[in-house]
Amino acid sequence: MQQDITFYTNPFSRGGIVHWMLEEVGVPYKVENLAYGDAMKTPDYLAINPMGKVPAIKHGSVVVTEAAAICAYLADAFPEAKLAPPTTERGDYYRWLFFVSGPWEASFGLRSCGIEMTPEQELELGCGRPERVLDVLAAAVRDREFIAGERFSAADVYVGSHIGWGMQFGTIDPRPEFKQYWQRLEQRPAHQRSLQQTEAAMPDFPVPGQ
Amino acid sequence: MQQDITFYTNPFSRGGIVHWMLEEVGVPYKVENLAYGDAMKTPDYLAINPMGKVPAIKHGSVVVTEAAAICAYLADAFPEAKLAPPTTERGDYYRWLFFVSGPWEASFGLRSCGIEMTPEQELELGCGRPERVLDVLAAAVRDREFIAGERFSAADVYVGSHIGWGMQFGTIDPRPEFKQYWQRLEQRPAHQRSLQQTEAAMPDFPVPGQ
Repeated sequence: MQQDITFYTNPFSRGGIVHWMLEEVGVPYKVENLAYGDAMKTPDYLAINPMGKVPAIKHGSVVVTEAAAICAYLADAFPEAKLAPPTTERGDYYRWLFFVSGPWEASFGLRSCGIEMTPEQELELGCGRPERVLDVLAAAVRDREFIAGERFSAADVYVGSHIGWGMQFGTIDPRPEFKQYWQRLEQRPAHQRSLQQTEAAMPDFPVPGQ
Repeated sequence: MQQDITFYTNPFSRGGIVHWMLEEVGVPYKVENLAYGDAMKTPDYLAINPMGKVPAIKHGSVVVTEAAAICAYLADAFPEAKLAPPTTERGDYYRWLFFVSGPWEASFGLRSCGIEMTPEQELELGCGRPERVLDVLAAAVRDREFIAGERFSAADVYVGSHIGWGMQFGTIDPRPEFKQYWQRLEQRPAHQRSLQQTEAAMPDFPVPGQ
């Protein structure tokens, strides 16, 4: 029996990644848009995600948080959507999911706080400078349609979203490799559907930080 | 046919996580210890990991980098070791692997660079303050033997290593939940074997930053 999925998000959050993923999976889900601030700190929501942030999903009794984890979880929970490689062929799949959720997020987080890593900090932190992260990712997507094997996968949803948003918001340069990789992905019907739904929800919520 | 595994590490690196995982998997592997600095920047090694850092593994022709990704990869590549839950039951497994490799690493990375997040930065970054990360993780391991289901898994190797090292190096407080969780894990024979090998390699390599 199909179990209900509730998707907790905010139209201005990383929840957009999960929204796209849910559309790729193609099963029904209920969207709960939460405003930043108090709505994410209620006891009911903290029972879902004690970090008090979105996205999160509840699938039957299973709660999953962290956008990359939700993508990986949904790909495995709905194998008929074929959004994960076979378990014997997941080298690139895990490598790039964890590369973007780890070093990319950490590296750009430091930059957004005004930190330019010293060589000692780079050694200790392990995430590398943003330029190096981008060099490595550009090489990973160069001349490849998908980042993990011959098929589209949850890793493309996650990595592609970071590349697409990074170029849109100007946090990364529109390198040719990124443009080529993203142009193919952004046209996917599931991505377009999720985008329309996200944009339709925006007027009801304040833009964070404004 | 079994394919060769080469494990690239440094005894003072996050490679210790992968070393433990390899011992849990129980297949043969070759260790390549690399000194920090030039040895990680040779063309040969950059072809393995263009980030110029360890750990990395090469399994046959498959290269995997990022400690969490390597743990997840090995668990799937060697199903007979039973180090990953079935693909239909991976909510907690992915949640906590990505929670520690993402928010934990980013949050403590910022702190080590002297950043105490403002509320605005916390909202934008999404990783949360270190105290909140630890509160959430303490609740996740409280009264549980394993973090993802009824069995030991690769998620315990990864999450446990962070908790164990955090307490050892004083970056996190030895909360009762962490001590109880870690005490059971650190006695595992595979962990002890990896520790002995790591310690045996230490005298041949300079301590980073000293």
